Formats: sequence, structure tokens, C-alpha cells
Amino acid sequence: MKKKIAVLPGDGIGLEVVKAATTVLDKTAELFGHQFEYQYGDIGGHSIDKHNDPLPQETIDTCLKSDGVLLGAVGGPKWDNLPGGIRPEQGLLGIRKALQLFANLRPVTGHESLTEASTLKKEVVDGVDLVIVRELTGGLYFGEPKERREIDGEEGAVDSLIYKKSEIERIVRQAFEMAKVRRKKLTSVDKANVLETSRLWRETVEEMKQDYPEVEVEHMLVDNASMQLIRDPKQFDVMVTENTFGDILSDAASMLTGSLGMLPSASIGSEAPGLYEPVHGSAPDIEGQGKANPLAAIASAAMMLKYSFHMHEEADAIDTAISEVLNAGYRTGDIAQNNDNILSTEEMTTKVVEAI
Amino acid sequence: MKKKIAVLPGDGIGLEVVKAATTVLDKTAELFGHQFEYQYGDIGGHSIDKHNDPLPQETIDTCLKSDGVLLGAVGGPKWDNLPGGIRPEQGLLGIRKALQLFANLRPVTGHESLTEASTLKKEVVDGVDLVIVRELTGGLYFGEPKERREIDGEEGAVDSLIYKKSEIERIVRQAFEMAKVRRKKLTSVDKANVLETSRLWRETVEEMKQDYPEVEVEHMLVDNASMQLIRDPKQFDVMVTENTFGDILSDAASMLTGSLGMLPSASIGSEAPGLYEPVHGSAPDIEGQGKANPLAAIASAAMMLKYSFHMHEEADAIDTAISEVLNAGYRTGDIAQNNDNILSTEEMTTKVVEAI
Ligand SMILES: CC(C)[C@H](C(=O)O)[C@@H](O)C(=O)O
Ligand SMILES: CC(C)[C@H](C(=O)O)[C@@H](O)C(=O)O
Repeated sequence: MKKKIAVLPGDGIGLEVVKAATTVLDKTAELFGHQFEYQYGDIGGHSIDKHNDPLPQETIDTCLKSDGVLLGAVGGPKWDNLPGGIRPEQGLLGIRKALQLFANLRPVTGHESLTEASTLKKEVVDGVDLVIVRELTGGLYFGEPKERREIDGEEGAVDSLIYKKSEIERIVRQAFEMAKVRRKKLTSVDKANVLETSRLWRETVEEMKQDYPEVEVEHMLVDNASMQLIRDPKQFDVMVTENTFGDILSDAASMLTGSLGMLPSASIGSEAPGLYEPVHGSAPDIEGQGKANPLAAIASAAMMLKYSFHMHEEADAIDTAISEVLNAGYRTGDIAQNNDNILSTEEMTTKVVEAI
Repeated sequence: MKKKIAVLPGDGIGLEVVKAATTVLDKTAELFGHQFEYQYGDIGGHSIDKHNDPLPQETIDTCLKSDGVLLGAVGGPKWDNLPGGIRPEQGLLGIRKALQLFANLRPVTGHESLTEASTLKKEVVDGVDLVIVRELTGGLYFGEPKERREIDGEEGAVDSLIYKKSEIERIVRQAFEMAKVRRKKLTSVDKANVLETSRLWRETVEEMKQDYPEVEVEHMLVDNASMQLIRDPKQFDVMVTENTFGDILSDAASMLTGSLGMLPSASIGSEAPGLYEPVHGSAPDIEGQGKANPLAAIASAAMMLKYSFHMHEEADAIDTAISEVLNAGYRTGDIAQNNDNILSTEEMTTKVVEAI
């Protein structure tokens, strides 16, 4: 098959890890007889420097014409205090909205050989295998009004958490579909004892669960969920929640297995191509030093093969290669223990390419 | 001194742990020559049963006439689906608003003898000593509009996150004052890359830090904060944040030290009496069985002595007694390891009374 991939390296280590991912994609294409064509686009701080715009229209067009988007990472202290309130993250928020990527999927799986690196006890995290399904184009992130406003004669500010029922339905359906092909348990996270949007959310889940009789559904308050992720993460299979709650919980969850540098994510919509990116940030402190762990970006590329191109065998080949390389003891600095042999970004990528 | 204490046992184990706390207060009064007079009030589910109202005006009046309020816990499955959307938690939200308790203080300290019970590694949590200062009467909890609303011809819902600058100032000042007498580090948690209220929050902290040159100030995004609490909780001294963020983060933090059953909290305002309550919930599953751990309620009573009555010596006497009892190996079921001798709520209370 022939596929067009939009590649948005972004900032910091984004460049390096995206390069690693395309190297692995090329090898996969060669082995399985596919053709991947890359179109590069600017996003984030780097794009502000070049175009004074974190998300030029050209980048959006490139993405819309592609079959899948691979993103590195966005942001850095260099662009933290620009005049006019322009910020690299607007590129990320903007592309999500432009492509209508309403579902952010963040699988958290422990590689047994790495759980030592977690701050949680081994018996608590060994075998964790959950996915957070985060609503990504609504909720508190995008609701209007979002503004400065005079309140009672003084300065004030407002953000709005807004959902239409159809927005809740499509993300909850996504989560049910995932739960159906996994361990058949769905935890819907909300704050229904305080928020009106959460009550609508909970009602909607209750209505929809009739379409998925095989899936066990539980509602959990977001404060409790943040406790339970630490107390007993193995209780979870699929979690579905509002944009901001998902942002907070998925970052907490990414700490569980000691493998933040390894976690991929997918953001998908119903029409446009999906966007795939590592969970880790742009890590400007190690930019350009060959120290970045490329495995999260590589695993994100595998998710693209699976979700956007329906190339399951190919995706599995990459995931298996990652596991083999880890089992063989190869490590980048971020996941190394005392006696490990530390590989550079490029060396690690080569190991994965060899293992495929 | 003579002090009036409003006592609101609430639901579930609230009754038992509040009884334990007043027993310890009585002993303290006797030893230090004070007089504590208790006025009881109804709140929560129990109050719905009795008055069809989770917070009768009489309860508010009792609290307003008191020097400090001691609360047990509120809620339970029995009242989860009442007609008309009446909920026990409205009692809690209502009393916070009625007494204008804008600051919720949640200290998280590990008792070294208990950190084994944490799901985090001992070296990560031993020595954790942080306070979360949560804004409690504004933000996403109370902003209007908060309603069902037709949006684009379909059902929808709205909540509003609203702050006036003065609301941010008073909670941030509270946090600075605490940091000043502790380890002099303040972490302000927000989501300034997405929320307008967070940007106002961050600006306000930046302006106010000039009044506290001795305090080191750092800003942290809420998603990162939820990671850092798990990765390295010892980095924190005082954290200050919005109502909902504080709800989520403080529950996560309460898991760190393995002593959820031991954590107290204080909610204070500028005029009205402060309200003191254990962090744990009403635990209806063990209600009335003498299994509840009374130490969180007892420690909350100690916080009342300290913050509302300025009885520092008395508060220290209680805290020391709790530590001694724990060091001597006494445990309630929730914090017991295999070979511990398990005490009932009453027996544990007696041990503390004896140790004072
Ligand atoms: C960079 C930021 C705007 C973004 C978000 O909050 O969604 C990030 O934290 C994420 O989770 O992808
Ligand atoms: C019961 C609930 C309304 C309350 C809150 O969300 O504030 C509780 O979770 C708390 O933290 O005290």
C-alpha cells in the first residue's frame, strides 16, 4: 500500500524521535512491501520562529491531505513569554481542533523489564494494562466564554466547561468499542456530585451501556480515580473522561510503569487522519544530544499503522521488536539502571530496525 | 479558655470518629484547664432523612455561633439517587460557602512507621511533608452559569470556572504565609497554557511574590504536578491551586504515605469559624462496627486547637500522642500489617487519651 504521512517534528527532541520513527517505518515498508511518503510541516515554537505562527495554514493543509500525522513534541522555555500571548501549545490545540481529533487514546502498559524504574512497588504495577480515552476537542479547553472580564468592579477571568450530548456520545462510544475488544471493563470518570456537565456525561454513559451488554460499566469520581490509579492501577481496563480530567489523569498514569519515555498516544477523529505522538514532551534540556528515547515515537508510529492504516501485522512487528530490544537489555539513559549499557537515540533505533 | 465547638457528625463512620475526637478534646481541656462546649448539628444524608435538607439553616446558625466546627463525613449510597437531585454533598458545599471557608489546608505527612503501607517505594515517600492549599469557595465548583442548556438544537450542559483577582489573592496569601513558616517553597499549580483563569492566577502569584522575598516560588502545570506527586513528592512544601485541581491532587497526595485514615484537614475563612474534618469519607461499609480509624478526626481536632483557638501546646500534645501510639505499634485495621494487634475505634481513642 501507498500512504502519505504528514510529519511534524516540532521542537526540542521532537526532531530526533520523529527521525527515529520514520527510519523504523521505512524498514517496515521495505519488509511488508508498502510505500510511505513523508510530507513535513512546521508546528510549535519552531514554527513561531519561522512564520510567527504556531500552526500555519500550510501545515493544516499538509495534514488534511495525508493518511496519518506523526508529531514529535511542542514547546520550550524559549517561547514561554512571547508578546501577544502567542504560544507553541496553540499549534497542538489548533491541529486537534482543525482535524477534529476528539479522542485521545493513551495506553499505559508496563514492560516487565522496566517496572523497577517506577516509584511504585513492583507488585502494584507489574501487569498494568490500561487505556485512558480522553475527550480532546471540547470541555474546559475549548468552551466559550474564555476571557478576561470585569467582575464586581475588579479584574477577573472565565473559562467554560461545555458539552453537547453528541460530543459525549462519540467519545464514550469510542471507549466502549475499545473495552469490547479488551478486558470488557469501562470506568467513566466524572465529578457528577458537583458538575452539571458530569451529570449529563454520566446519564449518557448510562443510556449507551445498553448497546454494550458485554461491557461492565463503573462510574468513578475524578478525585477518587486519581487515588485509585496510585492505590491499585490494575483494577482499570479502559477509562473515559473529559478533556482536563484526562490531561491530569493520563499524566499521572504515565508515571506508573516507569516508562514515560516509552508511551505512545493516538488522537483520532471520525473523518480526518489520526495524529500520533509520544506522550513525553520536547525535553529541551537534552535536545540534539542523541540522548532522547525514541521508543515512544516509534510505538506511536506503530499505533498509526494499526489505527489509521489497518496494518495490524506491521504494527505488531514493531511492538514485538521494541519488546525484544528491551528484553535484550538495551536502554537509553532515561530508563537505564546502574549497570546498563546506554545507547544513543540512533543506536536504539538501529536495534529496533534490526529486530523487526 | 472557654470555647464553643459545633459538632456535625454527618454520615457513616462520621459519628464514631467525631465521638473519638471529642473524647480526646475533653481530655485535653481537662489537662490544660479549658472548657469545650459542644453544640450538635445535622448535615448530609442523615439530615436529608430528618429534615429533607442536607444543610438546615439551624446547622448554619449553630456553626456561625461557634468558635470552630468539627465535621465527621458526609454521603453514602443510600442517598445517591434521590428525587429532585438532592444530595448529601450539598451540605458540605453549602457549609463551605455559608462560612466562606475559602482555604482548604491538607497536610500530608508520613508517619515513618506507616510508610510500608504505601503503594509507593519507601525511599520515595519517607519524609514527605507537604501541604496542599486548595481554593474552596470558587472556581469550577461554584461559577455560574452551571446548567442544562440546549446547544445547536440538542441537549447540553455548562459549568463555569470563574475567579476574581481578590479571590485568588486571598488564597495565595494564605499559601505564602504557610510557606513562610515552613520550608519556604511555594508551588503554584495551574493550567496557564490553556486556561484564562490560570493565566490570571499565575500573574497574581507573580505580583504577590514581591511581598514574600524569602519564599521560593515555582509555577507548575497541573498535569505535570500530578506526575511529580508520584515521581518525587519530597520536592514539595506548599502547593496552592484552584478548587477542582486541588480536589484531584489532594486525593492523589493522600495516597502517598499509606495513611489515608490518618489525614486531617482544615477549611478556613477570614471571619467565620474554621471547619475541621478528616480527609477520609463516610465509609458506610464499616459504619457502626468499631473499625473506623479515629486518628484523622483526632488530628483534625488538633488542627482546630492550633488554627482556630491558637492553642499550640495543646495541639502539639495531641499530635505527639498520636505519634507515640503509632510508634508503640498500635493499629486500627486499615493501617495494620500482618502481625499487628488490631484495635477498635474506641480502644485506639483510649490509647491516645492515655498518651496525652
Ligand atoms: C501542551 C498542552 C496544551 C497539552 C494539553 O494540555 O492537552 C499536553 O499537556 C497534552 O496532554 O497533550
Ligand atoms: C464530597 C465532595 C463534594 C467534596 C469535594 O469535591 O470538594 C470532597 O471530594 C472533598 O474533597 O471534600
